[in-house]
Amino acid sequence: MRNIKMTIEYDGGRYLGWQRLGDSDKTIQGKIENTLSDMTGTKIEIVGSGRTDAGTHAKGQVANFKTTSDMDLLSMQSFLNRYLPRDIVIKNLVEASDRFHARYHAVKKQYSYYVWNHIVPSAFERKYSYYYPEELDIDRMNAACKKLIGKHDFIGFSSLKKSKKSTVRTIDEITVHKEGNMLRFTFIGDGFLYNMVRIMMGTLLEIGSGMQDPEYVDAILKSGIRSDAGMTLPSQALFLDKVYYD
Amino acid sequence: MRNIKMTIEYDGGRYLGWQRLGDSDKTIQGKIENTLSDMTGTKIEIVGSGRTDAGTHAKGQVANFKTTSDMDLLSMQSFLNRYLPRDIVIKNLVEASDRFHARYHAVKKQYSYYVWNHIVPSAFERKYSYYYPEELDIDRMNAACKKLIGKHDFIGFSSLKKSKKSTVRTIDEITVHKEGNMLRFTFIGDGFLYNMVRIMMGTLLEIGSGMQDPEYVDAILKSGIRSDAGMTLPSQALFLDKVYYD
Repeated sequence: MRNIKMTIEYDGGRYLGWQRLGDSDKTIQGKIENTLSDMTGTKIEIVGSGRTDAGTHAKGQVANFKTTSDMDLLSMQSFLNRYLPRDIVIKNLVEASDRFHARYHAVKKQYSYYVWNHIVPSAFERKYSYYYPEELDIDRMNAACKKLIGKHDFIGFSSLKKSKKSTVRTIDEITVHKEGNMLRFTFIGDGFLYNMVRIMMGTLLEIGSGMQDPEYVDAILKSGIRSDAGMTLPSQALFLDKVYYD
Repeated sequence: MRNIKMTIEYDGGRYLGWQRLGDSDKTIQGKIENTLSDMTGTKIEIVGSGRTDAGTHAKGQVANFKTTSDMDLLSMQSFLNRYLPRDIVIKNLVEASDRFHARYHAVKKQYSYYVWNHIVPSAFERKYSYYYPEELDIDRMNAACKKLIGKHDFIGFSSLKKSKKSTVRTIDEITVHKEGNMLRFTFIGDGFLYNMVRIMMGTLLEIGSGMQDPEYVDAILKSGIRSDAGMTLPSQALFLDKVYYD
């Protein structure tokens, strides 16, 4: 039995998210599983590194699947890219060890969130960024990012109901990079709770626009109350860039 | 009577092209005219610098219109960007002289054509580039570009039927720029015939891939026969970048 690791890029705009919902044809996982099943003639299930929300994109989602097929990897990749919808692309396929599990073995993830920060919107970036015309102070946002970095209980930055599972996560790095009118916020951490990046983003923009001080972050981390934090920004500006494995 | 010059960006993907067709709601010109007419309460017609084909995009299309409205320019721009579809954006509005005419006074235009040149397609660039997986020799294409530069009868690079109007145009500059897997071909000239950039592109890729020599260009310029040239590449990779006025 082969265990194959795939790196996937997708434009999430037309989909209900990564995770298959019954027989739905409107999820990324569902599309890939159907195409793999057509390719091998047997029902294939894939394990993703984690879900992405409806509308969220990926440049480097990782998944694995097991198969007895003896097709070579290049032929597989070319079959998949030919028969998958054009907004889902298999960037890479490699043979993985038997025990490799895309979700359990993921040690870090990188997400980026894009903000179009100009009074005039963009006709081209509208589907891949959040349009925010007000002025933003990058220094203030950087000060707030510093407070988010480290090991914290991020329950206040999540849409999760209180749960028995740990909501403690470690963020290694947050960077804010400006190129032209686009701001790119990059987050690297060992895991992100449901909606966590999008709520951190809503909070950071409140700080950047001057509505809140950087210390606002401390208060949310302390209270752990979702309603203390900023709004959940839309999913279409969020990209899963990369999944790290040991 | 004010004469207002507008700079427009649009994602042409959903439209039948620039030029209004009857009352069609599926052209860029039609959308802008309808929104301007709603704004001023009078029927407004706009003059564009020239047509763009169905599916072709613009980062700097220019048009002008006359109005008796006394609304200030910033309020106009903000009204337009609010009520136009999000894939059409008014980047700039300025008062022009009475005599300014966006088509007659255009002296040069710049177009870019994007080619995604990698074996693995791109989920994000698919709507804004032409996927061409075979290897391309940039030096060979540059040699062919040199032959296109200058004043020539470009009838062989056009889908026009033989016409009484002159098909002589001057190309000032063609550059090929590679960034990652994307090749950007930029054309600056005093005018471009119908489908001219897309046919030059089909021809350049035949040369870059080794199917033809750079001298192929000379033969097409000499014969003036459309069927001697390469195929017309698709419109979704073509951008009108800029229109120059004196």
